[in-house]
Amino acid sequence: MSRFDVVTIGNALVDVLSHEDDDFVVRAAVERGSTTMVDRARSDAIYAEMGPGREVSGGSAANTAAGLASLGGRAAYIGLVADDTFGKVFTHDLRSAGVHFDSPVASDGTPTGRCLVIVTSDAQRTMCTYLGAANHLDVGAIDEGVVESSSVTFCEGYLWDEPQAKDAIRRAADVAHRADQRVAFTASDPFCVERHREEFRELIANDVDILFANEHELTMLYEVDTFDEALHRVRGRVEIAALTRGPRGSVVLHGDDLHVIDPYPVTVVDTTGAGDLYAAGFLYGFTHGRSLLVCGQLASLAAGEVISHLGARPEVSLAELAAPLLGG
Amino acid sequence: MSRFDVVTIGNALVDVLSHEDDDFVVRAAVERGSTTMVDRARSDAIYAEMGPGREVSGGSAANTAAGLASLGGRAAYIGLVADDTFGKVFTHDLRSAGVHFDSPVASDGTPTGRCLVIVTSDAQRTMCTYLGAANHLDVGAIDEGVVESSSVTFCEGYLWDEPQAKDAIRRAADVAHRADQRVAFTASDPFCVERHREEFRELIANDVDILFANEHELTMLYEVDTFDEALHRVRGRVEIAALTRGPRGSVVLHGDDLHVIDPYPVTVVDTTGAGDLYAAGFLYGFTHGRSLLVCGQLASLAAGEVISHLGARPEVSLAELAAPLLGG
Repeated sequence: MSRFDVVTIGNALVDVLSHEDDDFVVRAAVERGSTTMVDRARSDAIYAEMGPGREVSGGSAANTAAGLASLGGRAAYIGLVADDTFGKVFTHDLRSAGVHFDSPVASDGTPTGRCLVIVTSDAQRTMCTYLGAANHLDVGAIDEGVVESSSVTFCEGYLWDEPQAKDAIRRAADVAHRADQRVAFTASDPFCVERHREEFRELIANDVDILFANEHELTMLYEVDTFDEALHRVRGRVEIAALTRGPRGSVVLHGDDLHVIDPYPVTVVDTTGAGDLYAAGFLYGFTHGRSLLVCGQLASLAAGEVISHLGARPEVSLAELAAPLLGG
Repeated sequence: MSRFDVVTIGNALVDVLSHEDDDFVVRAAVERGSTTMVDRARSDAIYAEMGPGREVSGGSAANTAAGLASLGGRAAYIGLVADDTFGKVFTHDLRSAGVHFDSPVASDGTPTGRCLVIVTSDAQRTMCTYLGAANHLDVGAIDEGVVESSSVTFCEGYLWDEPQAKDAIRRAADVAHRADQRVAFTASDPFCVERHREEFRELIANDVDILFANEHELTMLYEVDTFDEALHRVRGRVEIAALTRGPRGSVVLHGDDLHVIDPYPVTVVDTTGAGDLYAAGFLYGFTHGRSLLVCGQLASLAAGEVISHLGARPEVSLAELAAPLLGG
């Protein structure tokens, strides 16, 4: 039996959330509803214009790990923070959520990364990420013992913006497969897909067993206009594809088998973390021998909980929320 | 015309909020529903046991200033932070809320103060405060120009735990009165009252024009058993007393005149900041020439908004919420 159900690898970030009007996004000159990578000076400049915020630990793959732990899964996380206040907060929040987190701490003076999350009245979030210490993730940061002893190694596409992180992911995928474990990957963001389309396609075809992508990322990946076309393009290229469509629910593809999953009925407050928690629910089911239909339902439930409040990590026990689905 | 409606003076703190069960409060050996002052080591030890948190700017008097600004009032704040991450967050949040904040930054290595806020399922909050840089507040930190040009100078009783802060408050009261302005004071916390009963009585009798206290603080102050007895004891000792009773609403006393104010009807999520925002609503009305009845109603409204969500500062525009009351 593996020591962990899932190890997730990604950019360790503290989120700074603030409600702003639509004009703010225009003035900040960032991509609405997407993630823009910014340097420290621009991050500081945008922050100076933002209203009062709240700080919560974030980072896409770290949110997924927290969601897995909330469901009762055994989760580990690999990502880099600095020895500073936000680094301590990030570490505290992840460990106290029940996630194994033991990555070395960066000490070259680069601060812990932060993601400015601008929430507009339509519950959309626009993100400005300054990677900081997370940018140092390289092959040396991959704890091979943890990867070998995790049933699934889950990596976020965001990492592709850092050249040395690509090698780290390829190494992790190699270690996982040699240990007869599975590799999952999330496309993360449409603009991230656009920046790295060819490499993503190659990675998905060669190294990925389970792909997570939303409709925009998928059509961007295969340069097609419709979800249906994209669905036919991904078919056969990856063992399992879990494809989300926002309020239209999701589709899980496995060879010739296809499941159409309804969204979990909630009032949407903030879509931050929807994809991260979808992956958490799915991978919890997957590593506990559930059918792909139940995996998809768990994914919808976890995503539904997180979009019903501000913030990208669960506010209630997902294990309790999911008990009816799990027959527990 | 004064430059500011109100300047508030208090301990500058960043709150770290977490939901915990009742057992946690017992294990941490702190006073349930109250504030315990802790040193850095104990703060760190309690934090290590807490679940994932969220960080928001706090500090009783700073919350009051933020509430005043949200109502459209001209608010200033005096309090000390360090040149660190939490200090920057505190400063950003207050300034972006529209509060004038220009206190010198402590640079002796003491970190910005923090308040661990343990929220239990009954919406009660139990607080563990490590003062950090806030502890350095002394006469030199009082910007006399700001005090002179504020219609009301509002001080929190919590400051009484620091000997040199007492002198700072006495100086601020003296400067305000010499400039023909008013002095308001909040008793802050029953245990704070117990620690400083005699000095509080003397301060209230000699230096305070407007007293804020809740039922527990007031009975503790005058060592009586019932609210009614306490009411008769405070009568004549201070010009105006605004006395809160939680779900029973509040009473505003002015000489022989007495107003009984209903609570604002909300579902209570977290009582943190209730007293701070009550003071904000009251002082907004007071500095805008409203009747004491309307002052009390504005106070109830501001307190009601803040207890309807997690966190001690308004999440909506109080000016918009109060428009029906203000005829605006």
